[in-house]
Amino acid sequence: MSTWFTRRRPAVELPRLSPRAQRAPAVRIDLHEVMPDLLPYLGQAAYIQLEQFRTLSRVAAEVSDLPAAERVAGAAGHALSKHQGIAAEIRRRGDDPAAAMRPFADEIEGFGAVLVGADWRETLLAALVAGGLLDDFFIRLAAGLPGDIGPRVAQLLGSDSGQEGMLSVLRDEIEQDPKLASRLAMWGRRLVGDTLLVARSALHLSGNRITDEERIEPIFTELIAAHTRRMDALGLTA
Amino acid sequence: MSTWFTRRRPAVELPRLSPRAQRAPAVRIDLHEVMPDLLPYLGQAAYIQLEQFRTLSRVAAEVSDLPAAERVAGAAGHALSKHQGIAAEIRRRGDDPAAAMRPFADEIEGFGAVLVGADWRETLLAALVAGGLLDDFFIRLAAGLPGDIGPRVAQLLGSDSGQEGMLSVLRDEIEQDPKLASRLAMWGRRLVGDTLLVARSALHLSGNRITDEERIEPIFTELIAAHTRRMDALGLTA
Repeated sequence: MSTWFTRRRPAVELPRLSPRAQRAPAVRIDLHEVMPDLLPYLGQAAYIQLEQFRTLSRVAAEVSDLPAAERVAGAAGHALSKHQGIAAEIRRRGDDPAAAMRPFADEIEGFGAVLVGADWRETLLAALVAGGLLDDFFIRLAAGLPGDIGPRVAQLLGSDSGQEGMLSVLRDEIEQDPKLASRLAMWGRRLVGDTLLVARSALHLSGNRITDEERIEPIFTELIAAHTRRMDALGLTA
Repeated sequence: MSTWFTRRRPAVELPRLSPRAQRAPAVRIDLHEVMPDLLPYLGQAAYIQLEQFRTLSRVAAEVSDLPAAERVAGAAGHALSKHQGIAAEIRRRGDDPAAAMRPFADEIEGFGAVLVGADWRETLLAALVAGGLLDDFFIRLAAGLPGDIGPRVAQLLGSDSGQEGMLSVLRDEIEQDPKLASRLAMWGRRLVGDTLLVARSALHLSGNRITDEERIEPIFTELIAAHTRRMDALGLTA
């Protein structure tokens, strides 16, 4: 469980998280230096959405409250649509989606296993946290894609992900069981590190830790800011 | 497991299946005598699609071959869309989808448990067989719905269900393991009875076995004919 994220390149320290008050405004960095090639980008993004679909549909099957199950199922459906949209982009290039996704199988399946919590509430929070961070990350990277594919993929990934429904299900659960809040806050914090490692694995890094961190830090600072807003929406400290 | 389908009314014998050569042409019967009321119809149909989504997404999570997993996930997505479409019809009437579905919870959850096979191939065949039969059945009943809702629901249920994808996944599996064919054929036969009992539970029956059978038999004969074509498409005897 602890080996999958070191397979592709040596593990490096996570970027330090800036304290909220000091958060810098978005900095434009040159994405081209760290951009993955197009096909690996699409393959990894497609696989992440497929895994998100699987995680959410398992949760949907476990939730016994029907309105909650429906909202989670809806979020699963959105992840599936995004997966299918990216798979269609891969096919449009004449490539095979399964072949493009396969190099990421161990990493993403391992990551999917990390997202499974002690109960469905934890797993749902994991899907919300990881899905939100990775959608934001791949949208950000899309700006560095060649041709007109970038805007299309950004629009696809930026479309509704059923996040409001997931938030409302978790809010209801926290309301019914106030002790859940601290457990979920802790669980959410654990997931951020693993999720950012998946994001980092997508980037072409030089291996020079100092310059790599300089390039990555502004991207990750933005991701963490959006993550903090999602946790705030649940009344949880990020 | 054996009690859920007798809860709503006393169990009656299944209609005899006509031998293939003698199958009668479709007979128009007066649906109004057996038609469920609109809201229970919508609630049961919506729940069946939600359960189909859950069954298929569990299978999608178990299939390790990526192209196969994608096809099954696609079928799950179609079931979810149909569920959401019917839920939207319920909302359009000012009713609550969860409240409309709730009376069917025990029946459909029990039926969902019946569909779980010894491995994912059996569960996928179950989803194909049960989903196909019940879609056909509810499409047939839609003709008896009041106002303009019937055609809309019939179109929704008749839209793509990813059946071709499911068939191709099962065909590939049978090709790789020829012994699977006889196991699946037997499993498919077992499921037809339970599925027709769910269908029957939707109908307003008088309790008079002879006249009830006369009304139901033509509907079920059509359903079995379509089922036989699906099994034929897998090279299996229905």
